[in-house]
Amino acid sequence: MAAGDYALSNSEKDGLYKAIFSRRDVRSHFIQKEIPDDVLLRILNAAHHAPSVGFSQPWNFVLVKDRSTRQQVKESFERERERSIKMLEGDREKQERYSKLKLEGILESALNVCVTYDPTRFGPFVLGRTSIEDTGVYSVCCAIQNLWLAARAEGVGVGWVSILSNEDLERLLEIPAHVKPVAYLCLGYVEEFAKKPDLERAGWLPRMGLSEVVCYEKWGRHESDDKWSGLASSLNNI
Amino acid sequence: MAAGDYALSNSEKDGLYKAIFSRRDVRSHFIQKEIPDDVLLRILNAAHHAPSVGFSQPWNFVLVKDRSTRQQVKESFERERERSIKMLEGDREKQERYSKLKLEGILESALNVCVTYDPTRFGPFVLGRTSIEDTGVYSVCCAIQNLWLAARAEGVGVGWVSILSNEDLERLLEIPAHVKPVAYLCLGYVEEFAKKPDLERAGWLPRMGLSEVVCYEKWGRHESDDKWSGLASSLNNI
Repeated sequence: MAAGDYALSNSEKDGLYKAIFSRRDVRSHFIQKEIPDDVLLRILNAAHHAPSVGFSQPWNFVLVKDRSTRQQVKESFERERERSIKMLEGDREKQERYSKLKLEGILESALNVCVTYDPTRFGPFVLGRTSIEDTGVYSVCCAIQNLWLAARAEGVGVGWVSILSNEDLERLLEIPAHVKPVAYLCLGYVEEFAKKPDLERAGWLPRMGLSEVVCYEKWGRHESDDKWSGLASSLNNI
Repeated sequence: MAAGDYALSNSEKDGLYKAIFSRRDVRSHFIQKEIPDDVLLRILNAAHHAPSVGFSQPWNFVLVKDRSTRQQVKESFERERERSIKMLEGDREKQERYSKLKLEGILESALNVCVTYDPTRFGPFVLGRTSIEDTGVYSVCCAIQNLWLAARAEGVGVGWVSILSNEDLERLLEIPAHVKPVAYLCLGYVEEFAKKPDLERAGWLPRMGLSEVVCYEKWGRHESDDKWSGLASSLNNI
């Protein structure tokens, strides 16, 4: 077969790119509606088909609906948010902007999902994890991104709540000492997927140009030589 | 609008799911053909549109074509592979199986990409990274998964080489001390995308059942109560 023959069709590619570019971190647009089992199944199965180092599949997905658990997670968020606000004492303007942001939808979403990393799975020798131990938790992050994209395709919003204490999560979800919480996600149908990320729209930070994050041959080298000039001019034009 | 109205069309969803389920970690099926600039641009742009904590976009993509650099990365791989093989002295059968596996395509692929994490970007205060510092590097992993899926959609295989010394990478790619290498990827067109992951086909490890990785309300709780019984029976049937 000729090179590129395994590319997806244009309409299939469009589906992937649409999911990637219209995916949002959703905090404030959840509506009250359950996620049907078949939809949730597809989302979880997509996550489970992520790459993992040594095929170790070191993830678990703890599905949380219980109101009392969620209320306690929300309290953990509130404490951590207060800590963050205190860190901004030296920058009152930023502190005020931070205080006005809506940063989670723990109680309003249909479902919370805690994604965890179990380093003991299929261990102790995990193929490919012997030089760089962190590749285990990196696998879990790939699963989270699969979950996020599948949810977007299904019309389900996802918000990642990172302003939390992992110690609180471990206690509330009975996570054993050898397992690490990686992400706490809020899932639910939404009123809208915003055209741009909330923090970009709010002027918190700008989107970087693609050319600023691409380097040629060595880290930090943004100037291209002849070998890279075609790509470099394309990067500057998007 | 009604719930679910933001779902992608069925054919768009199919595209995303096809990319997710047919994506492979490619080590041995690369063919000699350059990746055109427009294809590489789409792959990198997909990576750059990953979620990131506090919209910090902390990634860089170091594109490596230089043969001499790649040769030295390959030597780092060889050294780390030898170390891994020594670790299996106590399990000769596994050691022999490991020795026969093809685990990288550093020189055969069209392009190597080192993806790095810069914790100083837009810092020191990064919104949402104040409680769980690792969320910065998690963002980079989400970008890697976007890159991997976009490459699959374009017919380009990706192999993640994790059997490497990060110290070697830092030296060879002139990565500064404050920046962390996260992934070393090999990209290229392929003869085929295998139906199943190499390590599954080789009988190294089996794919776990989805029901084994899903928990209800607490970590490790695989038995469902009434609230979860519909989902639980679906999970057991796929």
